[in-house]
Formats: sequence, structure tokens, C-alpha cells
Amino acid sequence: MENFVFAYPTKNYFGKEAAKQALNAELPKYGKNVLLAYGGGSIKRNGIYDEVMALLQEQGKEVTEFQGIMSNPTYAKVQEGAKLCRDHKIDFILAVGGGSVSDCCKAVSAQAKLTSDLYDYEYQEKKIPQDGIPMGVIVTAAGTGSEQNAGAVITYEEKNWKGALWGTPASFAVLDPYYTKTVPQKQVLSGAFDTLSHCMETYLGTPRQPNLSDRMNEAVMRSVIENTRKVAKDPEDMNARSELFWAAAMAENGILKIGKVTDFQAHMIEHQLGAFTNCNHGCGLAAIQPALYRHLAPAARKQYARLARNVFDVNGEEADDETTLEIALKGIEKLAAFIREIGLPTTLTELLGEVDDAMLRQVADTAVITKGCAKQLTPDEIYAILQEAK
Amino acid sequence: MENFVFAYPTKNYFGKEAAKQALNAELPKYGKNVLLAYGGGSIKRNGIYDEVMALLQEQGKEVTEFQGIMSNPTYAKVQEGAKLCRDHKIDFILAVGGGSVSDCCKAVSAQAKLTSDLYDYEYQEKKIPQDGIPMGVIVTAAGTGSEQNAGAVITYEEKNWKGALWGTPASFAVLDPYYTKTVPQKQVLSGAFDTLSHCMETYLGTPRQPNLSDRMNEAVMRSVIENTRKVAKDPEDMNARSELFWAAAMAENGILKIGKVTDFQAHMIEHQLGAFTNCNHGCGLAAIQPALYRHLAPAARKQYARLARNVFDVNGEEADDETTLEIALKGIEKLAAFIREIGLPTTLTELLGEVDDAMLRQVADTAVITKGCAKQLTPDEIYAILQEAK
Repeated sequence: MENFVFAYPTKNYFGKEAAKQALNAELPKYGKNVLLAYGGGSIKRNGIYDEVMALLQEQGKEVTEFQGIMSNPTYAKVQEGAKLCRDHKIDFILAVGGGSVSDCCKAVSAQAKLTSDLYDYEYQEKKIPQDGIPMGVIVTAAGTGSEQNAGAVITYEEKNWKGALWGTPASFAVLDPYYTKTVPQKQVLSGAFDTLSHCMETYLGTPRQPNLSDRMNEAVMRSVIENTRKVAKDPEDMNARSELFWAAAMAENGILKIGKVTDFQAHMIEHQLGAFTNCNHGCGLAAIQPALYRHLAPAARKQYARLARNVFDVNGEEADDETTLEIALKGIEKLAAFIREIGLPTTLTELLGEVDDAMLRQVADTAVITKGCAKQLTPDEIYAILQEAK
Repeated sequence: MENFVFAYPTKNYFGKEAAKQALNAELPKYGKNVLLAYGGGSIKRNGIYDEVMALLQEQGKEVTEFQGIMSNPTYAKVQEGAKLCRDHKIDFILAVGGGSVSDCCKAVSAQAKLTSDLYDYEYQEKKIPQDGIPMGVIVTAAGTGSEQNAGAVITYEEKNWKGALWGTPASFAVLDPYYTKTVPQKQVLSGAFDTLSHCMETYLGTPRQPNLSDRMNEAVMRSVIENTRKVAKDPEDMNARSELFWAAAMAENGILKIGKVTDFQAHMIEHQLGAFTNCNHGCGLAAIQPALYRHLAPAARKQYARLARNVFDVNGEEADDETTLEIALKGIEKLAAFIREIGLPTTLTELLGEVDDAMLRQVADTAVITKGCAKQLTPDEIYAILQEAK
């Protein structure tokens, strides 16, 4: 186990009617002016808006609405939210939605307390915001685990950039599986795949010697695979949905990342694909990940073989480098088969329709790729991976 | 996954030289008057005292010493610490030691802020303390995970009672595996068994349907068993010691208990055995647990069979109740074999020398046993279990 510092600032309220319990316990801690943030209005159709608004009014809160947060939230939307916070002297942000709403609000919270431009502050001045407007998240779509940490994935349209900004973590999160019941099945499954992807990108990081986090991660991955299969067969399986909901939180609350350097190259490539095509995040990952992993596995074959063995039940002897790689690749084939089985796209063509090579070239050239844990990818390699995924 | 509310108030600093990092980051947050609490003085012999004192002095803290905290800390010691806190207007408690020092200080912290007597407040008035003097723990012996939660096991000598008091959780914990290097090997191994015991008592709780917490728990238990074996063979295996250190924290930080009702009947019986004999906690558990589990398994055979299968690698078909119980009992035999293998006592005679039946009868009659997850034990059943463990 490597050295680490770990804090978990978010209190979780999980289960049926958790919103009422959480808001009654938590809202009195904050001032009167609340920013109620949400997306395209599905919470008005499914009744969550009325429920939350009633709880806010019971406590005498002054509510300012911040609506229309899009999937792949934009930097312009972050600025809009921050301006609302300043104009209305917001004391508390209540985000109601999936990862996009949560991500947007984490960045809004930090930007509202900052005189500098948030992007410049982080990427030019290389600083991390230390302050933010307190916030809570009521999660209405499982998968991203965004409510569990401070990272926000934001699309900066003018720069054709989609990437991570550091925002404010939520003080509390509400995870009521019944609140996710009206989410379209495709999004439920792509959310579950996003969770699996977070787990794999953590597991395939360094160090190479397995540690306690890796072992727990294997347990989470096996659970995600099993419960995704259950939900794919029966969307009404509330126990499986609950398990997936908490797994999504576990994948991103930092516990599985303890003592690890994570990889997240699949996410970085997908983020750029998203910046150019606005595709669904989990589906984008599904289409890219097997091709990427086939490319990375030779540089970290033992690690990939361990994934194959302990999560995808691949057997066989690792007698030498070659047989180890064979096991690793069999695991990746099982991953691809799992993606097919749950009905997510396995190719970019399936995801996007006709695929423009010039766009793929741009994605490859602009993907912000860190060193990576298996190997550092060049733009040409990323382009080759995207071609293979086509 | 059942409903739950989960918060994790303790920030963890883990690894070599973590104390310096933690104290420099955390101490400036608190006032000048620090209570430095420790045990019998081993920290003076191994250099930790000097190191910590230098860090406190660098920051200009006024240090009051609270020394001589015994294993199985007494209620009288708690009162002594609370008086010191009041007399010296203590702003912050720094506990340096194992579970006993941490437990004692958690209760001291709560008692110091309370006008009522802590025991009466909790057991007569049925209240839980809401306030306490802020504290940090530098852990010098792994196993109890005491630094990760608010529970304190205290011996009330006048009442012949050893049980749980609710205290204040630490704001931060320091886990430096190198700080545990001078702990006697027997205590290292009994600490590791305490961790395994926490995991099992959680896993064998309800609900019976396996959830994500159970799966992660299996991973932690397998890790504890593997790394305890490594440390039993080579006490200098610092990687294995690190893994055990973090596993001890994971077993008691609440993550594995999410969505579970835990059992902890082995702990309750051992606590009373400790109250009458002052025996080592982990060794007491080792001597009791197999006999207790043989007794409980018929009432929760599927659960015990799952433990046997997923942690102790027992195979075989669960065709009916009888074969399921067979698998469960094989798992308990493997647990007993593991205890023998790492050199912990497998009988009360081995643990205590000659065993007085009248004392066992008193233990059985006074063990505070909750409903239990498999079955509620009567004093006669506990006595029979202790006889079997003799």
C-alpha cells in the first residue's frame, strides 16, 4: 500500500424517501437563498421537482432556479450559474439530476467564489479552488458518481475542449433508487458501464502489485457486471438498481483509488469524442474501451491478465509473456462480449452513424493524454485506436 | 441494498512519515492547549514520543500529558482524562497508541464536554453525546480500527462491565506502518485477527441477501488472511503490514457495514471475558469465535456457507439444509486451522491457563447480548459455548 491522504467530505443518504430525510436534516445548516439546479425538466414530469420544492418551501427557503443544464454541460452554462449565485447571494446550491447537473454545479460553486476565470485559474495559474458555495446533490441517474467527489467534466465549446475542472465536493448526496425509475433504459445501462469503466481505469493503474483497493475493486466490478445483466433483463429489478447505484458511488468516492495512480485514458479520449460529437458518455466509453485496451495490454500484460482472471473468469496458465498476453486479450474479448450483451454500441459507427475520419483525427490530436499507467499514447496511436473502434 | 445514512468524518494520513505531514497540516486548525495521551511509555522507548513532541513544540502548543492508559482502558481512566481536559482547558486531544488509547480518548473527549456522567448519560438517559473536544489519533498498533469511528470499549471495574460507550470520532488519523514496527509479534497477529473478526461479525449480519458491502468484505477478509500469513512468516514484510493496517481501518470505518445490521456477539462475549480476566482482545476472540460460530451456524447456514465458500475456499454442493450446514462447518474448521497456523490460542485454557468455571458462568451471565443476527443467545447457551471453547 503506497502513501496516501484520504478524506470523504460527502455524507450519503441512500434509499427510498432519502430526499426528505436529507433535506430536513441538512438544509437548516445553510442560509436562506438556495439555487435549485436541474436539467431539461424531466424532474417536473416525474414529480421530483414538486417534492423537492415543497421541502424547500417548508423550510422557508428563497429559491432561485437554474435550469436547462445540458448533458455534457458547457463552460458558458457554468458562468451562467455562477452569475446567478452572485446576483442572488446564493447560500446553498441544490443540484437535482445526473452527472451533468452535478458536474456543472460543482464548477458553478467554485466559480461563484472566485474573481478569476475558473479555467484560467486551474489551467494557466495551475491552482485548485479552495472555497465554494456549499452544495448538495439529489442524484436522479446513477453511473457517474459525480456527487461523490470534486471533479467536474465540462465542455468548453469555444476551445473544442472537454475536460476536468476542479470544483467543490457536495456536503451531502441523496441516492434514492426510486428517483431513477423514469430514466430511459439505454441511459441506465450506459451509466452502469460508466461505473465499470471508472473501476477498470482505476484497477489498471499503478502500482502493479495488487493491493487492498484492487481486491475491493474486483468485488465492485463483479457486482456491477452481475447487476447490469439483471437490469438489462428486468429494468424493474430494484435491488439490482440499488446495488448499481451504490457501486457507482463507490467507484468514484475515492476508496478504490486509495494507494493507486489511476489511468483514465479511456475517459480522456471519450471526453474529446464527446466534445466533437456530443455523444452519450457511457456509450462512447463502450465503443472505445475494448480497442484501447487491446492496444495498451501488451505494455501491462500482467495487470490486464489479472483483470481477465479475477473479473472475467478467464482461466489458463501464465507461463510466459505470450500466454499472459493471451489471457489479457481473452479478458478484453469478454469485456466486448459483455458490452454487446447489454446492448451498448461496440463500434463508433454504431454509436455515431457515419464516422468522419477528419473528426477522429481532431479527437486524436486534441485528447489531453497524461502519461498513462501502461504507456503514453501519441496522437497517431489514438487515431489508430479510434480507427480500430470504427 | 437497504436504506442507510453514511458519513466518514476522519481524514486519513497513511504511510511513512505521515505523522509529520498530518500534524503540520492539522494542528494549526486547533487551539494552543493539547492533551497528549498515550499508554505505558513504549512511545518513549521507540522514539515516537520525541518526534511528536518536537512537532507539537514547533507549533507552539502547550502540552499536558495524559499517560498510563492501560489495555482494556477503565472508566476511572476516562474520568481522569476528562478532568485533565477541564483543568487545563484542553483545545485538542492527540492520542498516540493502539485501540486502547484511542478508545479511552474518544470517551474522554465526550465526557469532558458533558456535565452528566457519560455512562449514565448513555445507558440510563439513553442519549448519545453530540459534542466533544476535537481529537486526532496517531496509531501505533494496527487491528482495532478504533481511530476510524466513535465507539469506545471501556471497562467499568466497579460494575464488572466491559462494553461500548459512544465517544467522539477523530478528525484525523495517522497510520504509519513503520510506527508499528516495535509492537510484539503476538500483538501484531492478534490485532490482525481482531480485524478479521470485525469483518466476519459484519458479514454474518443481516440482510441475508448478499450486497456490495458483503462482496467488498470478502475481498478484505481474503486480504487479511493472506497478509496475516505473510506477517506470521516474516514480521519484517512491510508491504503485508501496510495492507493489514489499511484493512483494519476499512473493517471499522463503516464502509463494509453499509446496508448491513452487524452481529458482534463474539465481541460482546469477549468483552465480558476481558472484564473478568483482562485477556488480550484479539486472542480472546480467537479462542471463542470457532465455538460460537459452530453454535450459530445452524440458524444461518446459508450465510455461514457463503463465508466458507467465498473466503475459506470450501467447495461442495448445497443440495439441502444438511449439506449447506456441512459446508458452513467446514469453513469454521478452516477458520480454526488458520488461528492455529498463525499461533493464536484456540482454547480458553491456552489463553488463560487454568480456567475457572465460576468465572465462565459470570461471563455468560453478564455478557450484554443483543438480539444477534443468527439467533439470540441465552446465558446458558453462552456458558455452553465457553465450555466448548475451554
